[in-house]
Amino acid sequence: MAKNMKVDVAIIGAGTAGLFARHYAAKAGAKTLMLDPGPLGTTCARVGCMPSKLLLAAAEAAHGARQAAAYGVKTRVSVDGAEVLRKLRSGRDAFVGSTMKECNELLAKKQLVKERAEFTGPRTLTAGGRTIEFKAAVIATGSITIVPKPYQAYPEFLLTREDIFELKKLPSRLLVAGAGLIGLELGQALSRLGVRVTVLGLDRLLGPLTDPALREEAIKIFSSELDLCPHHQLAGLKREGKLLRVSYKDAAGKKRSGAFDGVLVAAGQRPALDNLGLEHTGMPLDGRGLPQADSGTMRVGSTRFFIAGDADPFRPSQHEAAFEGRVAGRNAARYPRVEAERRYCRLAIAFTDPQLAVVGKARRELAPGTFCCGELEYKDQGRARIMNAGRGRLKVYGARRTGLLLGAEIAGPRAEHAAHLLAWCIEKKMTVPEMLRLPVYHPVLEEGLREALEDLSARLRGRA
Amino acid sequence: MAKNMKVDVAIIGAGTAGLFARHYAAKAGAKTLMLDPGPLGTTCARVGCMPSKLLLAAAEAAHGARQAAAYGVKTRVSVDGAEVLRKLRSGRDAFVGSTMKECNELLAKKQLVKERAEFTGPRTLTAGGRTIEFKAAVIATGSITIVPKPYQAYPEFLLTREDIFELKKLPSRLLVAGAGLIGLELGQALSRLGVRVTVLGLDRLLGPLTDPALREEAIKIFSSELDLCPHHQLAGLKREGKLLRVSYKDAAGKKRSGAFDGVLVAAGQRPALDNLGLEHTGMPLDGRGLPQADSGTMRVGSTRFFIAGDADPFRPSQHEAAFEGRVAGRNAARYPRVEAERRYCRLAIAFTDPQLAVVGKARRELAPGTFCCGELEYKDQGRARIMNAGRGRLKVYGARRTGLLLGAEIAGPRAEHAAHLLAWCIEKKMTVPEMLRLPVYHPVLEEGLREALEDLSARLRGRA
Repeated sequence: MAKNMKVDVAIIGAGTAGLFARHYAAKAGAKTLMLDPGPLGTTCARVGCMPSKLLLAAAEAAHGARQAAAYGVKTRVSVDGAEVLRKLRSGRDAFVGSTMKECNELLAKKQLVKERAEFTGPRTLTAGGRTIEFKAAVIATGSITIVPKPYQAYPEFLLTREDIFELKKLPSRLLVAGAGLIGLELGQALSRLGVRVTVLGLDRLLGPLTDPALREEAIKIFSSELDLCPHHQLAGLKREGKLLRVSYKDAAGKKRSGAFDGVLVAAGQRPALDNLGLEHTGMPLDGRGLPQADSGTMRVGSTRFFIAGDADPFRPSQHEAAFEGRVAGRNAARYPRVEAERRYCRLAIAFTDPQLAVVGKARRELAPGTFCCGELEYKDQGRARIMNAGRGRLKVYGARRTGLLLGAEIAGPRAEHAAHLLAWCIEKKMTVPEMLRLPVYHPVLEEGLREALEDLSARLRGRA
Repeated sequence: MAKNMKVDVAIIGAGTAGLFARHYAAKAGAKTLMLDPGPLGTTCARVGCMPSKLLLAAAEAAHGARQAAAYGVKTRVSVDGAEVLRKLRSGRDAFVGSTMKECNELLAKKQLVKERAEFTGPRTLTAGGRTIEFKAAVIATGSITIVPKPYQAYPEFLLTREDIFELKKLPSRLLVAGAGLIGLELGQALSRLGVRVTVLGLDRLLGPLTDPALREEAIKIFSSELDLCPHHQLAGLKREGKLLRVSYKDAAGKKRSGAFDGVLVAAGQRPALDNLGLEHTGMPLDGRGLPQADSGTMRVGSTRFFIAGDADPFRPSQHEAAFEGRVAGRNAARYPRVEAERRYCRLAIAFTDPQLAVVGKARRELAPGTFCCGELEYKDQGRARIMNAGRGRLKVYGARRTGLLLGAEIAGPRAEHAAHLLAWCIEKKMTVPEMLRLPVYHPVLEEGLREALEDLSARLRGRA
C-alpha cells in the first residue's frame, strides 16, 4: 500500500457485504480498496450460517437415527461430541477456504489490506499508519455479540459464535441466553447432540415468529424436547466451583435455577462501529451514536458513506448482506448519482426442527380488518405424516380488498421451501386465487401450502 | 339402486380421478352415480403414492442412520423387515381410511355402488343386473400393471404394486423389472432396507429423465449402491427350487444371471379398460382398441364419454388425475357444452435419492438451436454439502429468443422443491433474468437453482 493513496471507493470490512460491495464497485469502474484487520473468511463461513448448519446437520443425523424406530428400523446411537466438533470444523474450513480464495486474490493484488481502518475526516481514513483518500466509502464491518450486563462479570463461562465452534468437546450443561434465531438453532442442535440445554427467552419471542398463536404452538413443540423458558427475569449469577449458577424467575414468577458449565450468549447483535472514527466523518448519528442508512440506497443521509450487511441492523441475514453490498458498492462507485433499489420481501428462516419462517408481511405488521388468515396443520398433512414430521402449522395472510398474498408465518417441516415459493409469489404480486391455479405434485409438503391457501381463499370470499 | 335408473353423469371408477369427477359434476348440479367393484380407497392411498413413500421414508431412515458417522454420530442399524412392512401398512391404512371416509359417505347415500359396470349402448350401462341410463359418462378405471410376456409363466414369483406392500417379510433377493419411476423408487428403497436388488432397465431410460448426459450421471449415482443394469435383453427364465433364475445380456452384450425369490414388475401400466363394453358405446377406438381423450376437455372425440386419471395414459400422476377428474366431471355435467382447460406444465418427480425431476419442457422436446442450458453441480453446492448430499446436477433450459424459462431436469437432493419453484415460474411465463431478481436465502438448496439460472442467463446473453 502506497504511503498515501487515493481511491474511488474504500470498503471497510471484507465479509459478505464488503466483498459484494467491492465486486460491484469494481464492475462499475471504480478503483477500490478494502481494509479488514481479520480474521478474514466472512462471518457466514467462519462463525455463522455454515458452521451452525453443519452443527444442525449433525444434530439432525443423531435425532433422525434415534427416530428411525418409527419405521421399524432399529438403531443404537452414540454421539462423539469431540468428533462432531472436529468434523464440523473440517467442513467449516472448506467453506472458509472458498471465501478465502477471493480474499487471497485481493490480498495478492493489494486491493485488500489486513489493517484496521479509522476515518480521520469526511474523505480520509488512516490504516496501518497510512492515509487513504476516498470519494466514497462502504462500511461493512459486521456486528458484535451483545453480552447482557449481568453476564459480563463471568467471561470464563461465556461462549459466543466466535467460541462455540472452537470447543474441543461439547459442554455437558449449557445455558442459552436468547430464544432468537441463533439461540434456538444452536440450543436445539446441542440438545439433540446430548448437551443438557436450557434456553432462556424474553417476552415469549421465538426465532423470527410474530404471530402470537403460532408462537405459542411453537413454544410447546420446542418445550417437548428442550428446557425452554419463553420468558425469564434473571435473579442472580454466581460461581459454584467450575460451574455458573444462574437463578431466574419464569413467566409465572416461579424461581428456578441451574448450574451450567457454559453460557451461549445469543441475546442479539449490534453493529460493529466502535473506534471507526465515525465522529470525524461528519455523518449524522442518532441518539445511540449510530448512523442510519437508507434501505433503498444504503446511503447515510446525504453523505458519501454507505453501510451494508450486519453493520446496518436491518435484516441481518446473508442474502440481505449480499443485496446491500451490491447496492452500496454500485452507489459508492457512481456517487453522488445514487439510485435506490427495491428491497426483497422479507424472508427469514430458522433452521430448527420444525423450521420457523416468516415471509413478506409478518403477522405483527398487518392491520386488523385488512387481511384474512388461512392455515394448515401439519399433523393432517400427508407427506409430513410420512416423514414423521407432522408438527406445527402454516399460516398465510391475504389482503381482503385485493386478494393479494401478503405474507406467511410457518412453524413446520422444511418450511424453507414453502418460504421460497411464498416469497417469489409475493414478489410477483400474485393473488391467492392465482396461486391456486398452479400445479402441486403429490404427496409433497407443498400440498400443505396449497391447503392453507385454499383456506385463505375461502375466507377472502367470506365462505369460511 | 333402483332397478333401472336415470342419471346425468355415470362415473366408472372411484379412485382419485373418479372422486374428483363426481365432486365437480355434483357441484355443477348433475345427478351422479359412481360404480366401482372395489377395492375402494384409491390407487394412490392403497398401492401407489402413499405406501411407496412410506417405504421410501423407512429406507431413508435406515440410510440416514448409517450415514450419520459423517457427522461424528455413531450408529448401529438393523432393519426389521417384517416390522418395516407392518408399520408401512399401518401408516398406509390411515391414508386409506381418509379416502374411504368419502367413499363411505357416498356408499351410504347410494351415490357409489360397489358393482362392476359395463356399457351396453351409447347411453346405457349395466351394473349388478340393473340398467343405468346416463347423459354423459366419465371413465376413471385406472390402470393395470403390464406383465412382460416372458414373466407370465412364473406368476408365483411376480410382485406388483398390489402385492409388494402386503408381504409379511422382505425378500432377500429381488429382481426389479423396470427402471422407471416406480421401479427405481422401490428398488432403491428395498436395497437400502437390506434386500439384494437388481434393477433391469431398458434403453438406459431412468425414471422421468430425458436429458442423455444427466441420465448417464444418474445411472452412475444409482449404480454406486444398486445393481442397476440400464439396458438388458432377457435371455431366459427358469425355476431353481424356490428361486427364479433370470438370465440376461447387458448393454455390452455380457451374459449375466441371478436367482431371485421375487420379481417386482415395474415395466409400465396400461389403461384398465378391459370388459368395459367400450365396443357398445360407439366411441372411436384406435388401432389398439383404446379411446383417445382430448387433453384439454378429457372428452373422447365428439361423444358423451370422458376419460380421467390413469385410464388415460397421458401423465399418470395423482395431481394430473385430480385435474383430469375435475375437468371431466365439469364437462360431463354440462355436456354437450364442454370447455377445454389449460393443462399444467409437466411436473414429474421420482422420490429416489437423489430425487429425479422433470419440469416443463423435457430436454428431449427441445429443438436444437432454440434453447440454452444452464447447470449446477450439487457437489459444489453449499447446503447440499452440509447435508452430505452433494451428488447430481440441476439443468435448466431457457428460450434463446425470449429468455423464457422452458423447463428443467434434475437429479439432486430434494429436487421436488426446486421442481415446484420452476413449475410455478414456467406457469407464470417468467424469463430467466426475472427469476434472478427474486430472493434466495442462505444456505439453501435454492441457491443451487439460482446458480444454474445464472449460468443459463450468461449463456442466453452469449457470455458463457
